[in-house]
Amino acid sequence: MSKLVIVGTVAFDAIETPFGKTDKILGGAATFIGLAASQFNVDAAAVSVVGGDFPQEYLDLMINKNINIDGIEVIKEGKTFFWSGKYHNDMNTRDTLATELNVLADFNPVVPNHYKNAEVVMLGNLHPMVQMSVLEQMDTKPKLAILDTMNFWMDCALEDLHAVIKKIDVITINDEEARQLTGEYSLVVAARKIHEMGPKYVVIKKGEHGALLFHKEDMFYAPALPVEEVFDPTGAGDTFAGGFAGYLAKTADYSFENMKNAVIYGSTLASFCVEKFGTERMQNLTTDEIDHRLEQFKKLTQFNIDVS
Amino acid sequence: MSKLVIVGTVAFDAIETPFGKTDKILGGAATFIGLAASQFNVDAAAVSVVGGDFPQEYLDLMINKNINIDGIEVIKEGKTFFWSGKYHNDMNTRDTLATELNVLADFNPVVPNHYKNAEVVMLGNLHPMVQMSVLEQMDTKPKLAILDTMNFWMDCALEDLHAVIKKIDVITINDEEARQLTGEYSLVVAARKIHEMGPKYVVIKKGEHGALLFHKEDMFYAPALPVEEVFDPTGAGDTFAGGFAGYLAKTADYSFENMKNAVIYGSTLASFCVEKFGTERMQNLTTDEIDHRLEQFKKLTQFNIDVS
Repeated sequence: MSKLVIVGTVAFDAIETPFGKTDKILGGAATFIGLAASQFNVDAAAVSVVGGDFPQEYLDLMINKNINIDGIEVIKEGKTFFWSGKYHNDMNTRDTLATELNVLADFNPVVPNHYKNAEVVMLGNLHPMVQMSVLEQMDTKPKLAILDTMNFWMDCALEDLHAVIKKIDVITINDEEARQLTGEYSLVVAARKIHEMGPKYVVIKKGEHGALLFHKEDMFYAPALPVEEVFDPTGAGDTFAGGFAGYLAKTADYSFENMKNAVIYGSTLASFCVEKFGTERMQNLTTDEIDHRLEQFKKLTQFNIDVS
Repeated sequence: MSKLVIVGTVAFDAIETPFGKTDKILGGAATFIGLAASQFNVDAAAVSVVGGDFPQEYLDLMINKNINIDGIEVIKEGKTFFWSGKYHNDMNTRDTLATELNVLADFNPVVPNHYKNAEVVMLGNLHPMVQMSVLEQMDTKPKLAILDTMNFWMDCALEDLHAVIKKIDVITINDEEARQLTGEYSLVVAARKIHEMGPKYVVIKKGEHGALLFHKEDMFYAPALPVEEVFDPTGAGDTFAGGFAGYLAKTADYSFENMKNAVIYGSTLASFCVEKFGTERMQNLTTDEIDHRLEQFKKLTQFNIDVS
């Protein structure tokens, strides 16, 4: 088993979907990544920042999930990052209603000493310079550095983004972002161009259409589990990344073959995340439920053709 | 091995894509379905109509592919159905430039006597009353009747469409059409509503995002092979249907498990179809090429997680 460092936001979210709305609830990339990775009982540490308004019960929740929070700075006089969004009826598009950076505006991530030798580093969506700072703090080069990002940084910090992309092993990015980053419509061509930017592995997330893993000429495809309804997509991408990183940290096997399994675990966990608001479903997930859904993924994708 | 009856258009297409344009070339649903099904050396008959302008070489091509053409009526004084379309840069949307029904306007399909006991009937996209007429001509109830349709018939012949949908075993339909037919956004819910209309099996085609097979509570997902470029999508859906129907006719096994393989074969053949204009790629496809691509599909989708 490997150690896992997770950097990302820990936040308040207020979410509105066609099914209802929430007040301020627990959210943030590092939160979703951490909860997903915790399913694998890895030795994980979250690096983030919150304000004095952040409830102790949320921190206790992470501790109970075996997530080390020494790297979560609490700025007593500050306020926690807040995001509010409203999903449209198709659940594939959303409007951001509010983004209050608060303590995130001056976030200087500090990796706890005990985790500076972590084999796996998961860089959640943040300013690329913050992601780079975490990489630079590592005493030993991680066996696997995974980066998630979004179009916002392509628009306003492209040079910094390219600098950190050059340093990492795996990028997780959605289809539209892959197209924006490369100027290529074909995801196969886009993945090749991203390879040339640095990452040996490229994961392109297609939301309800699943995820593609690319490595040189190899490809792997994991569907999203077709569901009757997506209740709240918030955190699904981070949950995918957390499941992916957590499984790889647990198995300490960074081969393409094992990364296929990691993609399946990521998709499996993401399929739970969307069933309830925010982190609710991820907080009470059991191993039996996960195993059952893995069986569903097998049934969904496995077939028996003997090619002569 | 089962006999296979295919009804659908045999046509001229003129196609424009970002990569080039064609004059009038061979097209039509029955053509693409037949060429795909012919890969399985099944005893297939095409039922269609063409005009006196239809070249003998195109009919010879079908005969050479072992497709019985006794059911293709030639109306000497008439003109062959003509369709012309232009694809946009993303290749997912197209404008129809011309639709000349010609001999198709008064098409009365006639199933050759020798094929009235066929076990598998593939009803390609046509007016639902034409599809119904073919079903009614069968002496014995087919073991498997498969129907393909499109939104056009939902707009202008919905009642007739419902009547024929009630009679068939498998429907192949694209995602937007499934949503239009049921008024449901979720494809899982849409598939259930279509089940209730009659078909025991529902195949929802999602273009570049693959295809879903539904049967009661079971689901199976086949991705489309990610490709560098789609040269011409014309006929991909019909090729999928032809591969699906051809494989089932060849194996004469209509179980859900075998239908999974049929979906994979359909996707495999469709992945070739889009590589060249019209039927060009399908005319010269070898068994080795198909086997090689099936291996690619396996690599793309198969994984090894042992659920404890």
